[in-house]
Amino acid sequence: MSGHGPEGLAFSKGHGTENDFVLLPDPDGALDLSPALVRAICDRRAGIGADGVLRVVRVAAAGPEVAGMAGQAEWFMDYRNADGSLAQMCGNGARVFAHYLAERGWVQPGGAGLPLATRGGVRRVRWEPDDQLTVDLGAFELPEVPGLRVRVGERSWAASAALLPNPHAVVLVPESDLDVDLSVAPLVTPTETYPDGVNVEFVVRTGPSAVRMRVHERGVGETRSCGTGACAAALVARRAGPTDPPEDRTGGRAGGRADDPLRSQPATTTVDVPGGRLHVTETIDGRVELTGPAEIVGSGVLSPAWTRRHR
Amino acid sequence: MSGHGPEGLAFSKGHGTENDFVLLPDPDGALDLSPALVRAICDRRAGIGADGVLRVVRVAAAGPEVAGMAGQAEWFMDYRNADGSLAQMCGNGARVFAHYLAERGWVQPGGAGLPLATRGGVRRVRWEPDDQLTVDLGAFELPEVPGLRVRVGERSWAASAALLPNPHAVVLVPESDLDVDLSVAPLVTPTETYPDGVNVEFVVRTGPSAVRMRVHERGVGETRSCGTGACAAALVARRAGPTDPPEDRTGGRAGGRADDPLRSQPATTTVDVPGGRLHVTETIDGRVELTGPAEIVGSGVLSPAWTRRHR
Repeated sequence: MSGHGPEGLAFSKGHGTENDFVLLPDPDGALDLSPALVRAICDRRAGIGADGVLRVVRVAAAGPEVAGMAGQAEWFMDYRNADGSLAQMCGNGARVFAHYLAERGWVQPGGAGLPLATRGGVRRVRWEPDDQLTVDLGAFELPEVPGLRVRVGERSWAASAALLPNPHAVVLVPESDLDVDLSVAPLVTPTETYPDGVNVEFVVRTGPSAVRMRVHERGVGETRSCGTGACAAALVARRAGPTDPPEDRTGGRAGGRADDPLRSQPATTTVDVPGGRLHVTETIDGRVELTGPAEIVGSGVLSPAWTRRHR
Repeated sequence: MSGHGPEGLAFSKGHGTENDFVLLPDPDGALDLSPALVRAICDRRAGIGADGVLRVVRVAAAGPEVAGMAGQAEWFMDYRNADGSLAQMCGNGARVFAHYLAERGWVQPGGAGLPLATRGGVRRVRWEPDDQLTVDLGAFELPEVPGLRVRVGERSWAASAALLPNPHAVVLVPESDLDVDLSVAPLVTPTETYPDGVNVEFVVRTGPSAVRMRVHERGVGETRSCGTGACAAALVARRAGPTDPPEDRTGGRAGGRADDPLRSQPATTTVDVPGGRLHVTETIDGRVELTGPAEIVGSGVLSPAWTRRHR
């Protein structure tokens, strides 16, 4: 079935830690998904409303963009941002995508997990107990950026850089600083470090392997959850050591170099974001895995008249 | 059909000038709609997302709350705010509600219009050309409130009061003042005038019978549209006369008294809100009617597992 006959375009709405998506089932690649329709669907008042759209299409039907992954994955997560632009990958979205495929019976959960084709390469998702899913986000980098700081109003903090591969500036703050005003983008200096902007995480250590965070996503604003931001927070917090609060150690922590001694031990950090709880695991071979929930809220059909107006 | 068997709770999402609603078809009154479920449905990230819920139930099945309207209306618009509380009436919601009933074939559009039972009394909706609907909002009042002013930051304006019957403070401003910051509630003085808060409209005259406005709704913030706010804006602008811009005439306009000479002529004002275009008509018998679009975006079923978690 194509999900978009004359009876209307099928959709589901789902979320992972309140990072929300409209899923469009299009297994046979018959849907011509225009940026205008993506924007209309993601409009929170005149449409369904979401952070992005996940078109669910078989790799074999998805065209040249992902044809090279045909031997490695059956399904392509065609992720679009709410503004209609193409996106590479999204950790929260990959869990929702895999959960949706399993709910529909299009894949069998379990086994070695499900490889998904994404614009950022093939990513594997596996099912965990208690309705959790884990997505392998691959390698990361923790580059040294001398003098990196984040400023909000009169307050500023030393920051650590992380690439997942999207850029993050992580500040470890005492509990009392987590009330920072994120209605405007924090200033990250040196300003030439991130000409295309950077995601900023404010992280409080809440236990030996637990943090709580807020995140400002570049071009978006404060969000309820950011999968790669949670990973960045966990990686940086782990390297800052178990001191609580971390105070001034962020400037001098070990980087993500191959000789990083922390890479010899797998370790999981609990990361509480405003939208829920995530778990971040650093593997001994230098990858990072994100574990969390995924939920389908509802499923239906877009009104044909509405859809015609927005194609 | 009850719309909430084991297969999941049926829903539609619709909007009128971007004031959006989740409609729950419940013709036989079998749905126990808890405030918690309303809040979950209206959550824009963890639910479907809307300004409110419209339960669609027959008056005969709706219980004692509206039993007294049984002879006057077949359908009860059971409107709930996004916070789960009961609401009386909503002009944008009434159009969406009637449009939904007609789309489902539960009522026939046309004729003398459709009477709807609401917590604010029976309200009549009629169908117009070009996919517009008109809802009769009934009587209004334009009380004199000496010295009424609205302040935002360093700017302040003389204001006019309107009751639809919810309270509004309307300021007629020059075009250059419509950029006012509405991220926080405007200060309305004398502060004791509205102990429960007041909706504030900033209105620019754009023609002899046309205005453009922004609105700050009490307890909500700036919204894309407010039906009674559009009515308040039109009523006040009409009494301020055709001068463009109106400057200082807001303090001395005629009130809504029975001897108001403007009541001898029916008149329609075009009101542009951020979410679209409305038309407000003042009738010769002292009622106000709101005309505008209504749209159903999509329809479907809430996931049973999700619904169970939020009941």
